[in-house]
Amino acid sequence: MQRAFVEEGQAMEVPAARDVAPRIQELLAIFREKHLPVVFTEFTYSPTAPLLVGDLHPEHRPAAPGAATGFGRPSSSCLEGEENTRVIPELAPRATELVVRKHYYDGFHGTVLDGALRARGVSTLVITGTMTDICVLATVIGGFNREYRMAVVEDGVATLWPEIQRATLDIIRRAYARVLSAKELADELARW
Amino acid sequence: MQRAFVEEGQAMEVPAARDVAPRIQELLAIFREKHLPVVFTEFTYSPTAPLLVGDLHPEHRPAAPGAATGFGRPSSSCLEGEENTRVIPELAPRATELVVRKHYYDGFHGTVLDGALRARGVSTLVITGTMTDICVLATVIGGFNREYRMAVVEDGVATLWPEIQRATLDIIRRAYARVLSAKELADELARW
Amino acid sequence: MQRAFVEEGQAMEVPAARDVAPRIQELLAIFREKHLPVVFTEFTYSPTAPLLVGDLHPEHRPAAPGAATGFGRPSSSCLEGEENTRVIPELAPRATELVVRKHYYDGFHGTVLDGALRARGVSTLVITGTMTDICVLATVIGGFNREYRMAVVEDGVATLWPEIQRATLDIIRRAYARVLSAKELADELARW
Amino acid sequence: MQRAFVEEGQAMEVPAARDVAPRIQELLAIFREKHLPVVFTEFTYSPTAPLLVGDLHPEHRPAAPGAATGFGRPSSSCLEGEENTRVIPELAPRATELVVRKHYYDGFHGTVLDGALRARGVSTLVITGTMTDICVLATVIGGFNREYRMAVVEDGVATLWPEIQRATLDIIRRAYARVLSAKELADELARW
Repeated sequence: MQRAFVEEGQAMEVPAARDVAPRIQELLAIFREKHLPVVFTEFTYSPTAPLLVGDLHPEHRPAAPGAATGFGRPSSSCLEGEENTRVIPELAPRATELVVRKHYYDGFHGTVLDGALRARGVSTLVITGTMTDICVLATVIGGFNREYRMAVVEDGVATLWPEIQRATLDIIRRAYARVLSAKELADELARW
Repeated sequence: MQRAFVEEGQAMEVPAARDVAPRIQELLAIFREKHLPVVFTEFTYSPTAPLLVGDLHPEHRPAAPGAATGFGRPSSSCLEGEENTRVIPELAPRATELVVRKHYYDGFHGTVLDGALRARGVSTLVITGTMTDICVLATVIGGFNREYRMAVVEDGVATLWPEIQRATLDIIRRAYARVLSAKELADELARW
Repeated sequence: MQRAFVEEGQAMEVPAARDVAPRIQELLAIFREKHLPVVFTEFTYSPTAPLLVGDLHPEHRPAAPGAATGFGRPSSSCLEGEENTRVIPELAPRATELVVRKHYYDGFHGTVLDGALRARGVSTLVITGTMTDICVLATVIGGFNREYRMAVVEDGVATLWPEIQRATLDIIRRAYARVLSAKELADELARW
Repeated sequence: MQRAFVEEGQAMEVPAARDVAPRIQELLAIFREKHLPVVFTEFTYSPTAPLLVGDLHPEHRPAAPGAATGFGRPSSSCLEGEENTRVIPELAPRATELVVRKHYYDGFHGTVLDGALRARGVSTLVITGTMTDICVLATVIGGFNREYRMAVVEDGVATLWPEIQRATLDIIRRAYARVLSAKELADELARW
């Protein structure tokens, strides 16, 4: 999870992301202990690649000097070069772990993610992060398009509205992936 | 929309799809009258390409001779070579219109759709069909990944549950595309 | 290999393709005997998807009734629905073997090929066919982009000019894949 | 063109690349004067994404401290974070110009390149760089897969062997793109 979505006062703040961060931290510790590969994604917008997303979501465009920022306004959110694009310190990537700079919500589209996973022989993924209905859902669909077996951690993903969280997990469960709790996943991993 | 999702008694029947078919028919007539390109997609499963979707959704696998079929059972739904893979007669493609055989929910993934649209210089899409939360949503994300400007017709898409219909259109509206009624779209097209 | 490239008198005939067909037949027999998956590709052009390739290579466009056909002229070569799009009878696919309809030279682009291989856990490919410098080379690059380990059979691929055959195999050997003879490959497979 | 391929003494040095750099510089000046978009690609290898290319080309892997480097040996060539990954100073990108970090020879695969071009409405490309038979050829095929009209500058691309240069341009001319000289292209651009 990136600072732009987790920290208080950010234009695209998702308060519930702070609640799920400890669950992700626990799973991260298990993965590292078991030497399972961990990958981070950072959504990044750059004016040198003026994608549609910058029209639909002005928050990603550079904040004008002195102008008010916030939801619906140019706020340099996830802007290339800004500190807010980084993964939050509690989940900080290690030097040997892959950080994928992505330009779309789908972490597979236009990135090295699929190649890097294949190169390691990975065919099963555990997915956490924010927002459930945007980046998580799009990445799950991207993974399904590439034949990955996936599990989404229901208390390791967050969005702004409870009914959208429920509906998105329902869609994922019916069509794309397993949905289970961090505890259930930890128990499964303990039996490996 | 394919017969496998629209016709009564099909294993994957979506009753509401029959309600939206007239709206799609009206838009189809407008597009044809204005010589705007029309594309159809047919989701197709084949045992020669044993994709994950056949594990997650057994309905697509070949029905066993004599065995009961229906939701949750092998039912030859959207199976290559079956009549139920075809577009419903009310919306029948013309010989000059592209029919895309797709293997994933996302009509862009692993198909000629994007190339065919580019070859015609198309950059804006109107999307209708079923199911809203599966094939429509995945295709909208696929189109967003390829920089298409899109409009989804809210009374031209259907799924099984009203709350999932609402949530999906909400996700699409916030992140990916315009959402408007067939009437609103027809009015816009009349002004072209 | 498709009839459009192998048979005498076809607009896009590659005479050397007839010489390599027996090598491909031998390897096909070995693969089938060992129950290794076999995939065929059929390059197909359709006026409903008016891709750039139809501008660059008019042979693929529909022959006009009564008009002369041949290299440089609309000749219905690899045209959707024509018999010449089919694999030559000596290499005829079995009903359980995947036949990929492709729209680009690269057999991976816009097709289900990658998904079908992943679904079977395939990570190593043996590649044969024609033309060496067009469809074979583009497909090798497509496979490299998807992390496949590949071997190209030097006497199982054909093109029109010996110096282009040599140069293409040199490029492949340096950058993408192993290049070996059908005999060398058969010997390796015998030791599996 | 990146320093890893152009500078004397680099493990993957292509001496002819220094000869074509002035032609690229001239075209770059014309593009900038006419406010046509310019995009640079930087092939980058990272041990956090241990792709097949690192097995096939050990030069990209990190040089061991104190060990000899050079062709066929781990040499930190195009290694993430190294200065040699950068575009040569004569062609230095401006802050507003897109620099695409690519992980495959094909500049379109796993990058934002296609999206960035679409977002600007670009459908025609001029291609220069090195090596003609590897990154240039793979990128031309990637562009063809995405329906771009392309021109390759014959005295703006370089490789190690004259016969491979000739064969590659012959393949490109027959199947994918126009091939013309920097002078011919400059004359065409002057008439725009």
